[in-house]
Amino acid sequence: MKLKIESEILKFQNIVKLDSGKKIESCEIAFKTYGKLNKEKTNAILVCHALSGDQFCSGINPNTKKKGWWSVLIGPGKVIDTNTFFVVCSNVLGGCMGSTGPSSFKPKSQKPYGLQFPVITISDMVRLQEKLISYLGIKKLFSVIGGSMGGMQVLEWATKYSHKINSAIPIATSYRHSAQNIAFHEIGRQAIMADPNWNKGNYYKKNTLPRGGLSVARMIAHITYLSESALQRKFGRNLQNSNFFSFNFDTDFQIESYLKYQGTSFVERFDANSYLYITKAMDYFDLSMKKGGLPKIFKDTNVKFCFFTFTSDWLFPTSETKTIIKSLNSSNSMVSFVEVKTDKGHDAFLLDEPEFHATLKGFIEGQITKQKI
Amino acid sequence: MKLKIESEILKFQNIVKLDSGKKIESCEIAFKTYGKLNKEKTNAILVCHALSGDQFCSGINPNTKKKGWWSVLIGPGKVIDTNTFFVVCSNVLGGCMGSTGPSSFKPKSQKPYGLQFPVITISDMVRLQEKLISYLGIKKLFSVIGGSMGGMQVLEWATKYSHKINSAIPIATSYRHSAQNIAFHEIGRQAIMADPNWNKGNYYKKNTLPRGGLSVARMIAHITYLSESALQRKFGRNLQNSNFFSFNFDTDFQIESYLKYQGTSFVERFDANSYLYITKAMDYFDLSMKKGGLPKIFKDTNVKFCFFTFTSDWLFPTSETKTIIKSLNSSNSMVSFVEVKTDKGHDAFLLDEPEFHATLKGFIEGQITKQKI
Repeated sequence: MKLKIESEILKFQNIVKLDSGKKIESCEIAFKTYGKLNKEKTNAILVCHALSGDQFCSGINPNTKKKGWWSVLIGPGKVIDTNTFFVVCSNVLGGCMGSTGPSSFKPKSQKPYGLQFPVITISDMVRLQEKLISYLGIKKLFSVIGGSMGGMQVLEWATKYSHKINSAIPIATSYRHSAQNIAFHEIGRQAIMADPNWNKGNYYKKNTLPRGGLSVARMIAHITYLSESALQRKFGRNLQNSNFFSFNFDTDFQIESYLKYQGTSFVERFDANSYLYITKAMDYFDLSMKKGGLPKIFKDTNVKFCFFTFTSDWLFPTSETKTIIKSLNSSNSMVSFVEVKTDKGHDAFLLDEPEFHATLKGFIEGQITKQKI
Repeated sequence: MKLKIESEILKFQNIVKLDSGKKIESCEIAFKTYGKLNKEKTNAILVCHALSGDQFCSGINPNTKKKGWWSVLIGPGKVIDTNTFFVVCSNVLGGCMGSTGPSSFKPKSQKPYGLQFPVITISDMVRLQEKLISYLGIKKLFSVIGGSMGGMQVLEWATKYSHKINSAIPIATSYRHSAQNIAFHEIGRQAIMADPNWNKGNYYKKNTLPRGGLSVARMIAHITYLSESALQRKFGRNLQNSNFFSFNFDTDFQIESYLKYQGTSFVERFDANSYLYITKAMDYFDLSMKKGGLPKIFKDTNVKFCFFTFTSDWLFPTSETKTIIKSLNSSNSMVSFVEVKTDKGHDAFLLDEPEFHATLKGFIEGQITKQKI
């Protein structure tokens, strides 16, 4: 396979085969690195992003001019210290931040794929990450880390390429998407596809985005990222503009205003078709479908695992992670697991959670000693 | 106020004043009765329906030809025995099953109200129920019972007209809508209003319903009615049509098919504007805003309360009901409370839940003895 890097984009000049049996020609993976790769190439950490994330996990995001989505955790002197580590983060296949996705032009055409883009899986995303890591000359990653859909990618790495990683850090994730999670995603997709501007995925040419649908999809998802108690604490029944009800269908409550903002601002930065493809990839994810099922897929693994869950995360509850841990324990694997007490819900993995950060720091420092980097 | 009953529709020929300060002229309340009112008029039970319910709580619904929504509980020989009781159930103000709502014609016009219908509250709904009960010659109800939004109406009766009821049976409800519940409702409203067919509420004339938006709103709500464990048990990750993924955006999982059915069938029976008005009324509901707040509103009440909650109901969790009970206990009221263990979520109140039904039967029989009907 011919690969080439041009300004932080890895170009695959040959055909890439996907889980669906379909193929993509001339695909591109956009990535960003932080810190320096050491001579021995042993200090690389791959960071996998979540549904709406991108490759800008640290520093300043050049598009938004805001801090990278995990800059609370990654940077010089941070828990993942870029003075020590070489951090690699790539936009997932199917995304809309530089990697090939439904909004990309089809090869040999000046038209975006739209729905002609093949349906992808978490495994497809990881397959291309592995090509990137290989191209960078890294034979074995110090660690792979990610939360939510990023955690699914971490688990996929730990089964598909376990010999190429020393440790895996899956956070607020699961070995498979639950019925309730599939339900929330499906409603989001239905909202997008019900928007006439979506136009069966052909909205790029007309330049009329399916704003309403994508905004509703984001609002639905956003509720699942927060805990009921955090919503109650943060917003409760506080009114937006006055001490009285409006008695109309404008915004009465602060929670309504907050959600609307989340919806409308998302539309400016995310492609609706990418939302369809990436949610579908998450829904398809199920490690227990792999040969041997969950009890056997981690058998004889040498990967050191460190799992994190958050008590108020109802999207990926601790019970799901415990199922994986049982399976790992039964194959005598090296597993750490911390359930962090917090009322911040699923989003806690992106926030400054002292117990999470302290434990992760400890795990990484322990691995530095063992791996002698 | 002039009132008149014509074929189970109570007609208010005078103006009705609402909480918003606005007024409705010539409003109608559609209702249905089961059983016979005794001579002393002491055996009447008012049943209050939930968001998508109607007046057909028992027997056969003449519109759908299916069993009434609470026929598992109400009928001859049932827990609420229509051989003993006279059951009254009315479609709420703002509804679309015969009572005046946004789809009704404005007085002296041949046009539906649409968004010119005034925003209503739970208290407004109850105000009209009280007129109906008075018109039927009932001075004091044996009981008022309802689940979810029906339970809100029960609580409103118990504060607004406590002298007109002997007992109150609020089920799977709360004294106020939480931030998370408001959020889910607001997203449903946004989905409806984002549908171009909604057309600012003027879709009746064009006869193009906002199907997509209302369907998405119903799907969102439907997830909140079920528990995660029930979804997992009932659907899990079962595929709809084959052993393989479709690798397209059709229906892969049974849960997706189920939700789509819930959405599309709802559109056939419910008015999108009514959905906006009724959800808003629920969002506005907050007993603690009444004078004196929650600790004082039940002071010196003679109403006998019997509360029910369901362990897996995450829309109206038990903790909310416990807050009301604390307040009732502090005023030395007569309160029974049962938390029913079930994995069926919020919907459990509509289902055949033996513990719920047995306890309710006991409470009603105890009241029969005390009230000597």
